[in-house]
Amino acid sequence: MAPVSHSTGTKGHIGVDRFNAMLDETTPLAAHLGIRAERIEIGEAWSRIAFSPAALRAGGTYSGPALMALIDVCMYAAVLGSIGDDPRALTTNVAINFLTRAPARDLVARCKILNNNADFVVGSIVVYPENDETNVICTSTCTYAIPPRAIERG
Amino acid sequence: MAPVSHSTGTKGHIGVDRFNAMLDETTPLAAHLGIRAERIEIGEAWSRIAFSPAALRAGGTYSGPALMALIDVCMYAAVLGSIGDDPRALTTNVAINFLTRAPARDLVARCKILNNNADFVVGSIVVYPENDETNVICTSTCTYAIPPRAIERG
Amino acid sequence: MAPVSHSTGTKGHIGVDRFNAMLDETTPLAAHLGIRAERIEIGEAWSRIAFSPAALRAGGTYSGPALMALIDVCMYAAVLGSIGDDPRALTTNVAINFLTRAPARDLVARCKILNNNADFVVGSIVVYPENDETNVICTSTCTYAIPPRAIERG
Amino acid sequence: MAPVSHSTGTKGHIGVDRFNAMLDETTPLAAHLGIRAERIEIGEAWSRIAFSPAALRAGGTYSGPALMALIDVCMYAAVLGSIGDDPRALTTNVAINFLTRAPARDLVARCKILNNNADFVVGSIVVYPENDETNVICTSTCTYAIPPRAIERG
Repeated sequence: MAPVSHSTGTKGHIGVDRFNAMLDETTPLAAHLGIRAERIEIGEAWSRIAFSPAALRAGGTYSGPALMALIDVCMYAAVLGSIGDDPRALTTNVAINFLTRAPARDLVARCKILNNNADFVVGSIVVYPENDETNVICTSTCTYAIPPRAIERG
Repeated sequence: MAPVSHSTGTKGHIGVDRFNAMLDETTPLAAHLGIRAERIEIGEAWSRIAFSPAALRAGGTYSGPALMALIDVCMYAAVLGSIGDDPRALTTNVAINFLTRAPARDLVARCKILNNNADFVVGSIVVYPENDETNVICTSTCTYAIPPRAIERG
Repeated sequence: MAPVSHSTGTKGHIGVDRFNAMLDETTPLAAHLGIRAERIEIGEAWSRIAFSPAALRAGGTYSGPALMALIDVCMYAAVLGSIGDDPRALTTNVAINFLTRAPARDLVARCKILNNNADFVVGSIVVYPENDETNVICTSTCTYAIPPRAIERG
Repeated sequence: MAPVSHSTGTKGHIGVDRFNAMLDETTPLAAHLGIRAERIEIGEAWSRIAFSPAALRAGGTYSGPALMALIDVCMYAAVLGSIGDDPRALTTNVAINFLTRAPARDLVARCKILNNNADFVVGSIVVYPENDETNVICTSTCTYAIPPRAIERG
């Protein structure tokens, strides 16, 4: 059977419903924190976290790991929206800058894939309160590797 | 009244029991993921995550956000172990490099504070399987700011 | 005497000529590499590197440190464009993601300051070939601390 | 002629003399700044920068880009010390945390490769004044990708 390559193969962005079903099945932390993908385009995706006590830390604000979970789901959705449903995609690097405290509201993350012609994919993510896109809570850059080509050769 | 400064004030590292009690009270995600501080020294701390389905992602390995939660608790413990129980400490930057898949075991994080003479504190964290310190799963650098001095002037 | 705070004090963005004169005087590496600020606004700045052998590495492409020098000048210009000519500004963290090889042309960096209400300033920088802004070579996030308030109290 | 692959090929760490000759030939910035590799082991390397005006910035301290150039040479030496002299090695990510001002002395960087079983190589670098290893000036994590396997198939 022909290999499916992210660089030459049968791409196609994964649908948001299929993505969320996969997320429910494999990553219970996302459901626990009320995180869902909202929209997936080719090279771009949005995710949302519902405001709830599960995500908070001292001071009643969103914890860093909850924000990272939101970012991680958004990046993963954007990666699968770019390369198709490729289980080989693997996070290698995450960097997050926290700019200001998050308010007690739902938050939205938006990821744009910055490149896609290589063995690694870099995405840029911003997190903001719903309906307040200019009030950036944190920014992040994530890198995914697309591992061993040997796999493709079946 | 005299200012309480993190560099000259009433320091004293927070005890591990008091830290974990504070964590339980303020950050439900830590208990949900089975994360605890294990040991807190001046400028150094260890945390642990118990292997459980709550922390996994596709492929049955630890999710990035679960690893980040482990790192975050470890850094926070090390910061409070350095500057005392100062609620003003605030994460500004987290960077994580994922080196290899985590095995299906408890993991331990170890944080060393790299500086402590400034308005920001930088910590270096490694995560490894229990009893296997040389098999590093991921490394991280975190920065905390110690915010507005105006507060100190009471 | 009243403290001079970067958030309430005698701000005013530094002009591009004054900035470049200061750069020439203090940082010979910038001139050596042909790096100049091009434009400085409040919270935003542009810098340029002239294509020359001094900046290259194996393969005839821009070296990482040359790109970092371009990013550093851009961030510094944007910081001084936000807080005024404050010598206390101090880089604490730089992260750069390299997306694609730079072509054999002049490059431009653009920095936007993401926050400015705190003890630290975060900037987001993109580097692209002149007249080709969508072809991003690398992205960067830099953090500056605004150090000891004691200085302010003079 | 058979390709030399880092995963299957004739590895062997590059010698320090050959590395420095290659550096001189391809990267004039290193010589301009007085940067050399000092020692290259398998998975570990040391580099040095000679104190000189060329590397300074405002305040008479080492500029960020000069420190990055020192880090970059050290990482590159350690990568070539791990995978052999493979021109395909490509920096994808650099993160640097600046902890304290560098003194007016030669500085040494030490890089340890943290993994080497994958399509990417992560190194951890510390920079310190010569003969003062515990006084860390800055720390860095760098990632190299080992690009397209197609090349190997010649």
